[in-house]
Amino acid sequence: MEIEEILLEMKDTSELMVDLAYSALLYDNEEIAQQVVELEGKVDEWDQEVQKKAVERAIQDRDVEKALVFIRLADSIETVADGAIEIADVVLRDIEPHPVVAAALKESDTAIATVRVPPGSSASGKTLGEMKVASETGMWVIAIRRGESWIYGPDENTHVEEGDLLIARGPVEGEKELRQHIGG
Amino acid sequence: MEIEEILLEMKDTSELMVDLAYSALLYDNEEIAQQVVELEGKVDEWDQEVQKKAVERAIQDRDVEKALVFIRLADSIETVADGAIEIADVVLRDIEPHPVVAAALKESDTAIATVRVPPGSSASGKTLGEMKVASETGMWVIAIRRGESWIYGPDENTHVEEGDLLIARGPVEGEKELRQHIGG
Repeated sequence: MEIEEILLEMKDTSELMVDLAYSALLYDNEEIAQQVVELEGKVDEWDQEVQKKAVERAIQDRDVEKALVFIRLADSIETVADGAIEIADVVLRDIEPHPVVAAALKESDTAIATVRVPPGSSASGKTLGEMKVASETGMWVIAIRRGESWIYGPDENTHVEEGDLLIARGPVEGEKELRQHIGG
Repeated sequence: MEIEEILLEMKDTSELMVDLAYSALLYDNEEIAQQVVELEGKVDEWDQEVQKKAVERAIQDRDVEKALVFIRLADSIETVADGAIEIADVVLRDIEPHPVVAAALKESDTAIATVRVPPGSSASGKTLGEMKVASETGMWVIAIRRGESWIYGPDENTHVEEGDLLIARGPVEGEKELRQHIGG
């Protein structure tokens, strides 16, 4: 990947991390906090790759300033990711349900759910649109984890596969419905 | 404000900062980068307020652990905000249009626009829905700055006032249309 592409991947990942970290906090969800921690490794690797490629490119085109901008940007994005990790860490370390949770849930009756597509699920191979996830369960899939990779902001044309971990937001009662919808 | 409310404000603000910082970067928009810098002051103040209130509450309820969780959370949110500031800083310091911009714009023909509602605008007092901003200009208003305060994620029922700064995302040609739509 070119430096610019890596930076865009880093951007998307850090945004997802912040989104997931706050979701984990508000809904006191350790599984989602754990996903944030796992994403950190990718951001760290990319940060180092940007540094390496920026210096290599500087040797070629002798543009020191440009290399420094790339390095500074990658570090800045890592700072965003660090903040997400710190938030996730609060969720993971806390013994009691988190104090912010109560305040947040007063204001909304939404929840966040993580649902795994089981082996042999009839959902496998279908798109979110074909499955009518949003219209039938009220849950909005915000990200899909597939193996080691992530799909950010999936839409109605995104295919679901066996083993995918769907992260979705919606009404409290939607989690159960989503699980039934995906499980069959 | 109670600690929990301050934390939720901090959360919303830090999310907005990250969103604006990346928008400023991708569209090489210094005005939006400047907004990120101005938001930092609020997050700093809130961080200190959380620390103070957390200690005061600990004196009352003698729950040290809870106070530390509040303080740690506020610091974590500030780290997210710091990352946003660092990204905005790259945009503000850079002399050339930013190298990431080219790569990003290849992938999309969307842009971000900041449009001020002028004095005497016919838009003043109307909702975004009444003005048909989205349907007639294709621009999606992601935030509104009103004096020192911010409206995050406004919807069709949000009123617009004279002097408001609208931050919107949409097709490149939408900026001009939005400006005409709001300006009259």
